[in-house]
Amino acid sequence: MQRFASKYGPWAVVAGASEGLGAEFARQLARHGLNLALVARRAEVLDRLASELRTASGVTIRTLAIDLSAAESALQIASALADVEVGLVVHNAAYAPSGEFLQLQAEDHQRSVAVNVGMPVALVHHFGRAMVARRRGGIVLLSSLTAFQGSPYLATYGATKAFNLSLAEALRFELRPHGVAVLAACPGATRTPGFLRSSPEGAPGELEPEAVVADALGQLGRRAFTVAGTFNQLAALLMRRVLPRQVAVAIMGAQGRKLLGERR
Amino acid sequence: MQRFASKYGPWAVVAGASEGLGAEFARQLARHGLNLALVARRAEVLDRLASELRTASGVTIRTLAIDLSAAESALQIASALADVEVGLVVHNAAYAPSGEFLQLQAEDHQRSVAVNVGMPVALVHHFGRAMVARRRGGIVLLSSLTAFQGSPYLATYGATKAFNLSLAEALRFELRPHGVAVLAACPGATRTPGFLRSSPEGAPGELEPEAVVADALGQLGRRAFTVAGTFNQLAALLMRRVLPRQVAVAIMGAQGRKLLGERR
Repeated sequence: MQRFASKYGPWAVVAGASEGLGAEFARQLARHGLNLALVARRAEVLDRLASELRTASGVTIRTLAIDLSAAESALQIASALADVEVGLVVHNAAYAPSGEFLQLQAEDHQRSVAVNVGMPVALVHHFGRAMVARRRGGIVLLSSLTAFQGSPYLATYGATKAFNLSLAEALRFELRPHGVAVLAACPGATRTPGFLRSSPEGAPGELEPEAVVADALGQLGRRAFTVAGTFNQLAALLMRRVLPRQVAVAIMGAQGRKLLGERR
Repeated sequence: MQRFASKYGPWAVVAGASEGLGAEFARQLARHGLNLALVARRAEVLDRLASELRTASGVTIRTLAIDLSAAESALQIASALADVEVGLVVHNAAYAPSGEFLQLQAEDHQRSVAVNVGMPVALVHHFGRAMVARRRGGIVLLSSLTAFQGSPYLATYGATKAFNLSLAEALRFELRPHGVAVLAACPGATRTPGFLRSSPEGAPGELEPEAVVADALGQLGRRAFTVAGTFNQLAALLMRRVLPRQVAVAIMGAQGRKLLGERR
């Protein structure tokens, strides 16, 4: 516990902290004794989580109610934390429009690009420099099993997750000599509120958020990307290494179609 | 020749047409008899290429001198072509800042995201709808061998190429039943002006732009992604299927470091 805080403390930023994996990252990081900047759109949800964590862990918490699709948000976050030492950035925020690419609105796709791609690039660039200067720190980018091949009906989301996996791998190579750890977390189905809304019937290999976050924090500094859960690890290996990519895409497509059908 | 135009004509948009692969796409598409909208920043370069192609092929050409990093550019392109039938979109434009991620400027990374990710998403969304309505058309997104693993010192560029590969795979699955072909072209080293500037010593497996473009146009409608050249195909297979991803990343990192060293 203390060891984690001395590597990645005293402050962590969790972008997309209101629920699901983001809130769970906040909980586990608070237990590790890190002070937290919780970022998401909904102030009241963040404030509730902050109260819970202050009571449970006694850490200091700032809530930043910010729309992560706006280009200036990275600067807002940076200036709200200019007076503290951020040793860990977790970019969990994601906008995931699902449906046929051409049926979705152009704005949905651009919002997904802004939140899932533009924002992690901006946050890593800003906080990474200070981490390198003090030769310690960590960066966790949320990717997904959708990163390993095209994901029909989640086309833009899946592509943003491929972006984050690639970015994390490259950054790990560049920043490791400077003492900064970088990890892409590639969860499969996780029982978050978002997942339970979209997939009430569940999915094979699904895990609780606790397990996914514990895996990510445990693997940070050890590898470039992590897939939590044996089922998901085998699925990822099959999709990446064994099946032709177009078969992997077709499997994702069949899953996506089923999901859309269930929701209609 | 006629067959290609009847599938993918009468107009093609080539985004990023001023030199290299983009100019070569324009040349080969003109030979196929397609009318062309050539898009890039530099008006005089586009006009020169347009004159050359009008003389050589007799096709109709519009030049659009537009900065593809601006969000409103997709709308400009759409309205400049509202009166014609666009059967093919080639997104070749790419901004590729090279160097250590943290040493580059934040604006460079965001520009790369805008040109390489935001713009193809917007163009495909706009022109794809009309293609589906008339049940024919084609989309070529330029990816790269850097798409298959993280690419240190080209971190953001490589991640945008992973995005385009994933997007093309998903879109191909979604649009094929509607008669629209989608392809990610994943070239390795290609003797374009940009490559020759950055890598005067050359690179293994390098090809001429003619070969890369002929491969892409030949594979459109047949597969989701293509790697031109036997050397590059073997390299891609090795990187994707055989080597551990972190070894593949380290190989890219060593190449990137060499490239940066050469330029200094």
